[in-house]
Amino acid sequence: MKVVSRDEIRAVFDPEASLAAVAQAMRRFARGEAQQAAVGHLGFTDPPGDTHIKSAWLRGDDAFVVKLASTFYDNPRQGLPPGSGLMLVASARTGAPLALLQDDGELTDLRTAMAGAVAAQVIADPAWRAPTLGVVGAGVQAELQAAWIARQIGAGRILVWARRTDAADELCRRLQVQGFAADRAPDLTELGHRADLIVTTTPAREPVLLRDMLRPGYRIVAVGADAPGKRELGPGVVAGADLVLADSRSQALDHGECAWARQEGLAVEQVIEIGALLPDGPAPSPGVSAVADLTGLGVQDVAIALGVWASLSSYSQQDPS
Amino acid sequence: MKVVSRDEIRAVFDPEASLAAVAQAMRRFARGEAQQAAVGHLGFTDPPGDTHIKSAWLRGDDAFVVKLASTFYDNPRQGLPPGSGLMLVASARTGAPLALLQDDGELTDLRTAMAGAVAAQVIADPAWRAPTLGVVGAGVQAELQAAWIARQIGAGRILVWARRTDAADELCRRLQVQGFAADRAPDLTELGHRADLIVTTTPAREPVLLRDMLRPGYRIVAVGADAPGKRELGPGVVAGADLVLADSRSQALDHGECAWARQEGLAVEQVIEIGALLPDGPAPSPGVSAVADLTGLGVQDVAIALGVWASLSSYSQQDPS
Repeated sequence: MKVVSRDEIRAVFDPEASLAAVAQAMRRFARGEAQQAAVGHLGFTDPPGDTHIKSAWLRGDDAFVVKLASTFYDNPRQGLPPGSGLMLVASARTGAPLALLQDDGELTDLRTAMAGAVAAQVIADPAWRAPTLGVVGAGVQAELQAAWIARQIGAGRILVWARRTDAADELCRRLQVQGFAADRAPDLTELGHRADLIVTTTPAREPVLLRDMLRPGYRIVAVGADAPGKRELGPGVVAGADLVLADSRSQALDHGECAWARQEGLAVEQVIEIGALLPDGPAPSPGVSAVADLTGLGVQDVAIALGVWASLSSYSQQDPS
Repeated sequence: MKVVSRDEIRAVFDPEASLAAVAQAMRRFARGEAQQAAVGHLGFTDPPGDTHIKSAWLRGDDAFVVKLASTFYDNPRQGLPPGSGLMLVASARTGAPLALLQDDGELTDLRTAMAGAVAAQVIADPAWRAPTLGVVGAGVQAELQAAWIARQIGAGRILVWARRTDAADELCRRLQVQGFAADRAPDLTELGHRADLIVTTTPAREPVLLRDMLRPGYRIVAVGADAPGKRELGPGVVAGADLVLADSRSQALDHGECAWARQEGLAVEQVIEIGALLPDGPAPSPGVSAVADLTGLGVQDVAIALGVWASLSSYSQQDPS
């Protein structure tokens, strides 16, 4: 078994191939080709922490992936990042462990941003020219989603809003360094009315983005609500949308934004899986409102980990040493 | 994170300390101090295989353990062992991965045998002098259970029965090499009447050891039935025993021998957890029949993995290099 450091992962990481692999995994998930094991959870109290163990396989693939992802909330007091994790690649032919990817959770962050880019592409209007992207939140995922979605839809401007204005300003600076025209929005109403597409990436447990802050034909990629109790979108935003998409219908209805919308009358069959619209789903017409609810898929971990593993294998095959 | 090979594990493995740790884990499990995550399962068909992912933590411990265990049934056609696996030790203080134990499933085999030895100790009669141990089955687990239980109860003789007589003879030879007086029993009735204590370690899905093969006051450690559909003991053996023990009451009643006995009238409250009787449970009097039903606990993995991890840590602390 090969043990792969974060630097080695970064050295071989192929953004375009990984994005295509994540999209393909979402497509195969929607077709029913995924097998995802029950998610394991351990909860710690002193100090507080959560560990999740997720395992998945796409039928027919040569390998499957087991992911360990931990968040220990007091780590920053010791100068440590709260999140940590790794992915294990094992053979679906013999069971043998093949590679341990010590990514410290970085691959999860990346595949989540890529899923956002895939979702944004599906709900974007192909007629847009240099649209404005609204970003709600200012954390690691806000930065990644902003960059990946902006590139995917060819955004001409990024508007950022976060509860803490200094964090929003800092995110704008980081996006500017990457070459994006990024500004802080004075409030969510201005962001909601100016942005062609909005991505929400907060840990909120109460609605942040409300129906009356949005313009007709709003387009939202909702990333934050990925566990029971989390919610970013106000009443009517999902239930009142013309088009409701999700990475996983069952997960979204269980613990995503769609779970709240269901209480407002959203019907199960109204939720369409994003993968079912790939690669060339019908783009929503202007004026049509659309929400894509992302909860995270084990097969996205599979896609990104097997991509790294494939790059490493061909790299070491090419390397005579 | 430290990556530890099977040879390094073997070099530091401490049998006595590990046995004590497994017993202590069973005790803490019975006290409700264990947290075991939902077991993840992936099933493969071409070629056929099963992968289980088990994670557990004993409250207050510094570390938790995630175990990957795979069985790929066609591996022997390629000259590979069917089983493979590894254990990951991670910090319960920060979430950081600490060690990857590449044991190939060996630590699981060992902790299962140790649990058998703990169970045997609990149901053994302290008045026995050089008792006879009966072993049903001739696989890896039969050999390990025979050796660990024989040492634990001070067995003077081991009687082996297996469906294939050549396999039983081969196991006897291997046990003789380890210094045990081991013979093949001509049939299960002879084994049942001569053995003071019997351990069953087959993959049977139909009863093998029947009530009328046993003498009064029989004592059995049942290891084989660890999943739905598996069964080694005939009708009445468990339900008719004076004392019914299990590593986990809920698991035993769900998918161990106790699940079958429940259909014969075994009451939930009749099943006593082994850990509740440790370290000095009341030994059954002569003439009292007893069955210990083992289904395997995640905290046994924790016990053995943390033992290896502790040995490695003190080893490397002592090592100036």
